[in-house]
Amino acid sequence: MVQLQRVAIAQTQISNRHIDLTAEQQHYLGRVLRLQAGDRFIVIDGSGHWWLAQLLVMLPAPPPQAEILEEISVQNQELAIEVRLGVSLPKTGFDEVVRYCTELGVSQIVPLISQRTVLKPSSQKVERWRRIIREAAEQSERQIIPTLLDPLPFEKALADGLGLNLTSTSQQYICVARGDLPHLYGCMSQSGGDAIAIFTGPEGGWTSAEVEMATACGFQAVSLGRRILRAVTAPVVALSCVSTIAEMKARSPDC
Amino acid sequence: MVQLQRVAIAQTQISNRHIDLTAEQQHYLGRVLRLQAGDRFIVIDGSGHWWLAQLLVMLPAPPPQAEILEEISVQNQELAIEVRLGVSLPKTGFDEVVRYCTELGVSQIVPLISQRTVLKPSSQKVERWRRIIREAAEQSERQIIPTLLDPLPFEKALADGLGLNLTSTSQQYICVARGDLPHLYGCMSQSGGDAIAIFTGPEGGWTSAEVEMATACGFQAVSLGRRILRAVTAPVVALSCVSTIAEMKARSPDC
Repeated sequence: MVQLQRVAIAQTQISNRHIDLTAEQQHYLGRVLRLQAGDRFIVIDGSGHWWLAQLLVMLPAPPPQAEILEEISVQNQELAIEVRLGVSLPKTGFDEVVRYCTELGVSQIVPLISQRTVLKPSSQKVERWRRIIREAAEQSERQIIPTLLDPLPFEKALADGLGLNLTSTSQQYICVARGDLPHLYGCMSQSGGDAIAIFTGPEGGWTSAEVEMATACGFQAVSLGRRILRAVTAPVVALSCVSTIAEMKARSPDC
Repeated sequence: MVQLQRVAIAQTQISNRHIDLTAEQQHYLGRVLRLQAGDRFIVIDGSGHWWLAQLLVMLPAPPPQAEILEEISVQNQELAIEVRLGVSLPKTGFDEVVRYCTELGVSQIVPLISQRTVLKPSSQKVERWRRIIREAAEQSERQIIPTLLDPLPFEKALADGLGLNLTSTSQQYICVARGDLPHLYGCMSQSGGDAIAIFTGPEGGWTSAEVEMATACGFQAVSLGRRILRAVTAPVVALSCVSTIAEMKARSPDC
């Protein structure tokens, strides 16, 4: 298994093995993932095709370009949808969050520093979480190893929608513990798209200002059910929910 | 919050405050839960009515009877379906299983001793799990505290279907890691009923003999998705799935 990042593109972006990266994809590959010219990544078109691709030129010079090297044949256990998960760091238990969510098919995890976040993790801690993710990905036979970004302030993560302002079909949700909100499952079932961003809150929940800020940025406030979940449990339930939906959509309508 | 066991009954079992318990319910209250005459429990009819009830006479003398004391008014956060979960004991991590599943609305957890089960828990361990369940139930604002039975051999748990041979509408599922099986969510969505038994396996999975034995006992073999889950993760995902279904069925068809 190789540790390559996946980037979802539209078929129309490929022409004669050249990939016409969008500005957001260039930003994501160059600035967020810090890939260099010659670095490889995986390009998926959301309908089962995977290609090994290579970055050609890097920022801040001319914008980066990419070319396809070869098509990849995989027995795909991955979710058909790319899931970027923003988790407001809990005081303890983030080990469990990254382990469970990796098993359940997450693509990228972003530890969020929100108003009620207490933990300020050391870089050793972040490396430990990356190690847990690698182990969990291998154990659960994933084709890719999810990326763990460095902790990010909530506002900053909101502003770029976890890099998901890529397509018009992206979905962005913020899970809120109380209040009469629609359920994530219902909202996702009715939506299409090949990428999703989900935010879950800290102990004590989001502040109402944070929820307002998120909805102003295009996030939909959703519920994970009437039961009160711990900060550690919410992301696991959200991922279970997403993986169930992906599974149900991928199946023929047998029982 | 009081630690009372819930028993689901049909409306037709109530006549003039007297509850006509079935033989299975008598067995469950007397033999499994070991309630005594005068002990209280909660009777639910599956459509939102809860009553405080009291046991009148105990085995092995005349079969136990029960009477209704009063109707209970609760702001119900409980699942509309009673979930009995049989979990083949993992080597480590059962603390997490009982904590997450309590948060997610489980009614009863039965630690199973299957062929590949390694752990033989001490009674202190079982008491520790009961303490975690109580704490988790309080933290997540449950109306009931789930019951943790003493560890039970797999065959014995199968034979009485976790006490769920109560109604003809019960559902019994055994989750199997590999193989092209229907998904739990799809099967449950198409079924009615107010009670469900779910079995999840140990590290290394069930033996094929165990799966055969379960299906012969009326259990349906189901999948929790194409990804390989740890023994600790499977019950959490199963409960997430059940709670999502219960939530979706309880809601109006808004998003």
